[in-house]
Amino acid sequence: MNLIVAQSGGPTSVINSSLAGVIDSGIDNDFDKIFVSMNGIEGIINENIRLVDAEVFTKENMTKKLKARPASILGSCRFKLDDDLDSPVYEKIFAVLKKNDIGLFVYIGGNDSMDTVKKLNTYIDYKKIERINVIGCPKTIDNDLEGMDHSPGFGSAAKYIASTLRSLRCDVDIYDLESVTFVEIMGRHAGWLAASSLIANYDYPKDLVNLLYIPEDEMSIDELLDDIREALKKEKNLLVAIAEGFRDTGGILSEEVFTNTKDGFNHPIVSGVCQRLADLVRDRLNIKSRAVELNIVQRSNTLISEVDSREAYNLGYRAVEIGIDRTNLVPVLRRKDGETYEVYYTEVAPDEIANREMKIPQEWLVDKKTLQEKILAYALPLIEGEVDQTYENGMPVFVKIEDFTREI
Amino acid sequence: MNLIVAQSGGPTSVINSSLAGVIDSGIDNDFDKIFVSMNGIEGIINENIRLVDAEVFTKENMTKKLKARPASILGSCRFKLDDDLDSPVYEKIFAVLKKNDIGLFVYIGGNDSMDTVKKLNTYIDYKKIERINVIGCPKTIDNDLEGMDHSPGFGSAAKYIASTLRSLRCDVDIYDLESVTFVEIMGRHAGWLAASSLIANYDYPKDLVNLLYIPEDEMSIDELLDDIREALKKEKNLLVAIAEGFRDTGGILSEEVFTNTKDGFNHPIVSGVCQRLADLVRDRLNIKSRAVELNIVQRSNTLISEVDSREAYNLGYRAVEIGIDRTNLVPVLRRKDGETYEVYYTEVAPDEIANREMKIPQEWLVDKKTLQEKILAYALPLIEGEVDQTYENGMPVFVKIEDFTREI
Repeated sequence: MNLIVAQSGGPTSVINSSLAGVIDSGIDNDFDKIFVSMNGIEGIINENIRLVDAEVFTKENMTKKLKARPASILGSCRFKLDDDLDSPVYEKIFAVLKKNDIGLFVYIGGNDSMDTVKKLNTYIDYKKIERINVIGCPKTIDNDLEGMDHSPGFGSAAKYIASTLRSLRCDVDIYDLESVTFVEIMGRHAGWLAASSLIANYDYPKDLVNLLYIPEDEMSIDELLDDIREALKKEKNLLVAIAEGFRDTGGILSEEVFTNTKDGFNHPIVSGVCQRLADLVRDRLNIKSRAVELNIVQRSNTLISEVDSREAYNLGYRAVEIGIDRTNLVPVLRRKDGETYEVYYTEVAPDEIANREMKIPQEWLVDKKTLQEKILAYALPLIEGEVDQTYENGMPVFVKIEDFTREI
Repeated sequence: MNLIVAQSGGPTSVINSSLAGVIDSGIDNDFDKIFVSMNGIEGIINENIRLVDAEVFTKENMTKKLKARPASILGSCRFKLDDDLDSPVYEKIFAVLKKNDIGLFVYIGGNDSMDTVKKLNTYIDYKKIERINVIGCPKTIDNDLEGMDHSPGFGSAAKYIASTLRSLRCDVDIYDLESVTFVEIMGRHAGWLAASSLIANYDYPKDLVNLLYIPEDEMSIDELLDDIREALKKEKNLLVAIAEGFRDTGGILSEEVFTNTKDGFNHPIVSGVCQRLADLVRDRLNIKSRAVELNIVQRSNTLISEVDSREAYNLGYRAVEIGIDRTNLVPVLRRKDGETYEVYYTEVAPDEIANREMKIPQEWLVDKKTLQEKILAYALPLIEGEVDQTYENGMPVFVKIEDFTREI
């Protein structure tokens, strides 16, 4: 009986840690062959499948190398499965799975991918397919997956954001004149990532990040500019974190920033809120102002949280264990009560994750001080430790798919 | 006899390495007191001066800590000294230097700051001032300082750029559809930094960075779009490096991108070339496209070249040695002939650096292949090694000015 694994959705810094967990677990649980599907479920449909060389994988310490490799090494897709179970795509997928004697398919992805896991299981029920289990494995930097304490991938993104803002603070302070630096952070609907910028303030006598604006905020541009005026009375150089999805109530940002262009996955391209705010501060307050977008570097870089990587690995490992004799499940992690950070693992139906979004709790959003306290207690344990990187000739070197798989 | 040191111009990753070199050399060469001036020469004018605690500096290993600290810890300024030597500002500066019994002033900065060093020395001549020497110490990420093989600060910026593009390549490859990712890199007039993106291609069978556009290029938007069309025939996902100062011959980019706003230091704000190109590719070629600006993170981050840091330290150390009995000089480094990378140190007059710009040699610019070969041979040795960073609670912690200086 064989195992196949794929990655889907946007990359995270630890999506390859989950992959390593799946492969190690596949080896430990005596699957005959372990396959990887390239570009998510598209690789199954197009039969773009590769075979893991288990001996090389173990001997060359690929687990360690995968943990250090940014972005999805198996590639990704934004493929939405047909709602109609009689669509030929289902027949094709299960034909390929059967042809390769697949007993378990593990799909690592976010809430869209969990919708795929759910649909494949509905099809399994519908067609009474036996001996093929489909299990999800959660990931997203956005931290909006329901059913778990935090999303694997969030910790590393939060670590990168907080660490980068500490470096940026050093830069922001250099001139002895008033300035406002806006930093745009990912997050279309929820402020989790932008709020994690406040972690940078931990254990500093003075705030490094002075102001924060997230999609959950309701305020006008005038109120925002008043905030800035007020903050400048206490601090010459402001560092202001902005979620890309922040909008003012008056619609000034919405008008200017949203474009009608879609990104090819039918999501509107949201960008520029930061530059627009910098322009407004310069024009209306006559203060030096600039925009810094952290952009996709925040999800694909070499600063990876060890805790996040370990947890993502464990979820991948567990996905295989669960999938040996069960289907239609997703391993998740939850936090134990108590002072010390400790998690336990359990599982939920993909339905509890698919097409839902976990929001920042309402009671955290009273004011910036409360949010900072809450996010520190919540997220500090998640950014702990750094995954080792290998540098050669002054640059990081990353494992390649050809290093541990071959074409079939 | 006392020593004073200041930092000026834009920050680099190793400007604090030079500071550490100055302070260590000041201690080793028995200066009675070592002062730092905050915000460049403005700190002397405003008497915003702090005293280095030499004992703490040595005992707490501040050299190591300064080498890991991004941006200018002494702050900076963009102060242009009056051309008129009878301006009262000169009198003020030398009064403060005399009051504090300063025998040597070391100014760490770029070509504008070397202009300051030159003018102060002209004033010393003019007023026949004795016992005060003014020495420059070079820095810039732009690599455009004349009189030396390469500018201290360039190696670390090049290391960050090449390393970040390796991570970005992992992200760019994930979807199985055509895409163009433009990465905007600093460099208003010269392509040194953008060209260093090609270092990422070293030792890879396939290029990670596919195309490069720098201010030295002369081409129209149509030619550029043809390049992209051609490159897409061979490679599905393109990673394209662009210098912020790149302009097309037809003026399409110039029109849209330049704003009339100045940045407060009288430099026009140049930004957006990358976003504009991404829009053009989307509109005209109907291909998924996006813009990534590396922005100020490329000069203020935690990935610091050990070679660059060591050289910057040595230059700071040497600046003090030179300045004990000479003035109006700047220590520089040059490369020895031969296969192995080795430098030697010498000195030049600030006049040879001030208000000049070192360009990429014309013969490197024949084509991308030639440029890549040349830049690899030139820059690979400069990015070697990583300066250690200290992480606490998952984030880097940086030394503070209060940790080794006190108010006077």
